[in-house]
Amino acid sequence: MSATDKIKLAKAASGSLAIASTGHKNAALEQIAKLLVESQSEITSANRTDLERAKKDGLSEGLQDRLMLNPERIVALADSIAQIIALPDPVGELVRGKTLPNGLQLSEVRVPFGVVGAIYEARPNVTVDISALALKSGNAIVLRGGTAAENTNIALVKILQQGLVDTGLSRELVQTVDDFGRDGANEMMAARGLIDVLIPRGSASLIKAVVDGSKVPVIETGDGVTHLFIDESANPEWAVEIVHNSKVQRPSTCNALETLLVHESVAESILPRVLGRLQDSGVTIHGDAATLAIFPAAVPATDQDWIAEYYSLDLAVRVVSNLDEALVHIAKYSTHHTEVIITNNQVNAERFLAEVDSAVVMVNAATRFTDGGQFGFGAEVGISTQKLHARGPMGLRELTSTKWLVRGSGQTRI
Amino acid sequence: MSATDKIKLAKAASGSLAIASTGHKNAALEQIAKLLVESQSEITSANRTDLERAKKDGLSEGLQDRLMLNPERIVALADSIAQIIALPDPVGELVRGKTLPNGLQLSEVRVPFGVVGAIYEARPNVTVDISALALKSGNAIVLRGGTAAENTNIALVKILQQGLVDTGLSRELVQTVDDFGRDGANEMMAARGLIDVLIPRGSASLIKAVVDGSKVPVIETGDGVTHLFIDESANPEWAVEIVHNSKVQRPSTCNALETLLVHESVAESILPRVLGRLQDSGVTIHGDAATLAIFPAAVPATDQDWIAEYYSLDLAVRVVSNLDEALVHIAKYSTHHTEVIITNNQVNAERFLAEVDSAVVMVNAATRFTDGGQFGFGAEVGISTQKLHARGPMGLRELTSTKWLVRGSGQTRI
Repeated sequence: MSATDKIKLAKAASGSLAIASTGHKNAALEQIAKLLVESQSEITSANRTDLERAKKDGLSEGLQDRLMLNPERIVALADSIAQIIALPDPVGELVRGKTLPNGLQLSEVRVPFGVVGAIYEARPNVTVDISALALKSGNAIVLRGGTAAENTNIALVKILQQGLVDTGLSRELVQTVDDFGRDGANEMMAARGLIDVLIPRGSASLIKAVVDGSKVPVIETGDGVTHLFIDESANPEWAVEIVHNSKVQRPSTCNALETLLVHESVAESILPRVLGRLQDSGVTIHGDAATLAIFPAAVPATDQDWIAEYYSLDLAVRVVSNLDEALVHIAKYSTHHTEVIITNNQVNAERFLAEVDSAVVMVNAATRFTDGGQFGFGAEVGISTQKLHARGPMGLRELTSTKWLVRGSGQTRI
Repeated sequence: MSATDKIKLAKAASGSLAIASTGHKNAALEQIAKLLVESQSEITSANRTDLERAKKDGLSEGLQDRLMLNPERIVALADSIAQIIALPDPVGELVRGKTLPNGLQLSEVRVPFGVVGAIYEARPNVTVDISALALKSGNAIVLRGGTAAENTNIALVKILQQGLVDTGLSRELVQTVDDFGRDGANEMMAARGLIDVLIPRGSASLIKAVVDGSKVPVIETGDGVTHLFIDESANPEWAVEIVHNSKVQRPSTCNALETLLVHESVAESILPRVLGRLQDSGVTIHGDAATLAIFPAAVPATDQDWIAEYYSLDLAVRVVSNLDEALVHIAKYSTHHTEVIITNNQVNAERFLAEVDSAVVMVNAATRFTDGGQFGFGAEVGISTQKLHARGPMGLRELTSTKWLVRGSGQTRI
């Protein structure tokens, strides 16, 4: 059986889930959560095999940590499924409707995509999270989870399929093409007409490879070179706390702050406090000349710093002459994820909100709020940085399409 | 200047239009409509040059007719702009909003894409229609309109740009890459990050080439192998009139009927009337064996007939044993555009609506209603047959994305 054959099985099964009731889908998810907790020893045993190989292959400690599943993390996965069960089912929602003058009744209703594909790197929690989101929104799912997590993913997919079978749904709704290596991903990217949408999650290079290679529609996620601009009128306390929180609270995430821009008229008064607080938390400041003059502990920034997504305790800092210069810098370097202005000036706040072309634009708040959980969407499929279909944090609704239903009584067109 | 340079000019100009008021955009469209009517002689003169070459190159009469602009058609174009002016502006519409427990105010608002690309074949009316739709929805537009219409399109783009300049907007908001031939289209397809969405309009082969070759997100349009199923309980009058209207009213459109399926228990009673009425209008029936037995004037259908989008007075006809067999046939051959059931059975109607995976699914109405104008969207960008972003007739709203605005007062994440 080829990877494409498995994708075809998912496609063939998808119709039955598309019309399953919310109760039926929730029952399957409950069973999956139960099986996960009951199968802790099988999962951790498979995971140990992957971890040993990862160690031998010299994977970084960060990647090893992301790969690792222990009983505590397995319970957290089951909890995350419980949260997805509690979310409202988007399928069947009426989006628009009207009756035409000729009596035709039109309604646009939300329907599942059909088959969702996910290509990601060695993070077994994504296997469970994205499958649960796909199933809740009525979609079959095809997974390509990275060779490093192969054994763990096999164990997890077995549980997902068993949960479906136990509740009278088709096991074919969850497929993995991990056993086909790189060919699996390539066949997914070629499966236009079988897979309805492909979501890459992981490094910028993985996402770029999928965007470049896929004939299936892709939703681009992640990649956050986020900016924060401290305006002339900024409340200094807010500036200190919001910048610190944006950079330090969890630097390895895509919504962590990467570049700080400061209005020159307040650089001398505010920067020492903002950067001092960061330095105390171990942040390395990569400053332009003006920043270095004010804060000598900084290291000189190079052009590379303006495009860097550090994912670490590093921050690029630049002094700009005004809001316009900040907007130009952001337009040039932003990845259209999240940008923030700290200001007390209403006109500048509204200009920033209107003119910055990013998924999320904030006034006086930390970049870290760009998140499905924080926005109240429950678990998150990813954060879309493109404009087609979904923008910003993606929840269940973003895993659906719509369909027009037209009810007539013999109408013909004149 | 390369095609990519022109695309960059559109991108650079797009920010100014994104924040332009509805009144300003409408004023520009009004000026364009006025200039179109005033410039009839320049347009028809350029068009004559294209038509002469088309004749010499042996273009089909149908294509020559689509290429032709006369004063009457130019006035119709101006009228179509007037209709677009009258439509509500989707930009700024509040999609969702809420205040989080921590006081953060979230709102998702509709924003333009930025830059829309259109790749189409020698139809100069598309140049005007799609530009007007793009501009009204706040987008810059890059056009690749086919070499056969080159001179006409140059004249039209000049008018579009003049209308923008006359009303204080940037001429760079409308660009054509026709002068770069095939390279123009290739550079558009490679312009990820510059063009936000690419819309191919035209033949199935053109659409496939764009879908296969583009790194820019594409919305697939057109391509309608539409089906109509006459169920056991169908009202015979409705069957006769709806089938006739769906096939004959305008056979060259993507929403015209291509395949008729009939329940075997009513085939003998209904088919002769349905097919006789079609035959009177010059339709050639391509029937399966059961159809031929009932209606000997039909020609035998081959496998090619089930996948044919005829665009002509031809219809494929098959007798099926029940609704399930009809659903299987549709799942196999449908291009997910429009499918219809004629039935008086409520359960079958709801099953058909739920289980057919198409952009528009109808009960007891003609396929020809799948149309932006009929749905009340005004002019139409195309009919999306994919599930990402837009499905079915696309109007102004489908040329927009959204953006999350977050207003805070110093919030940081715990």
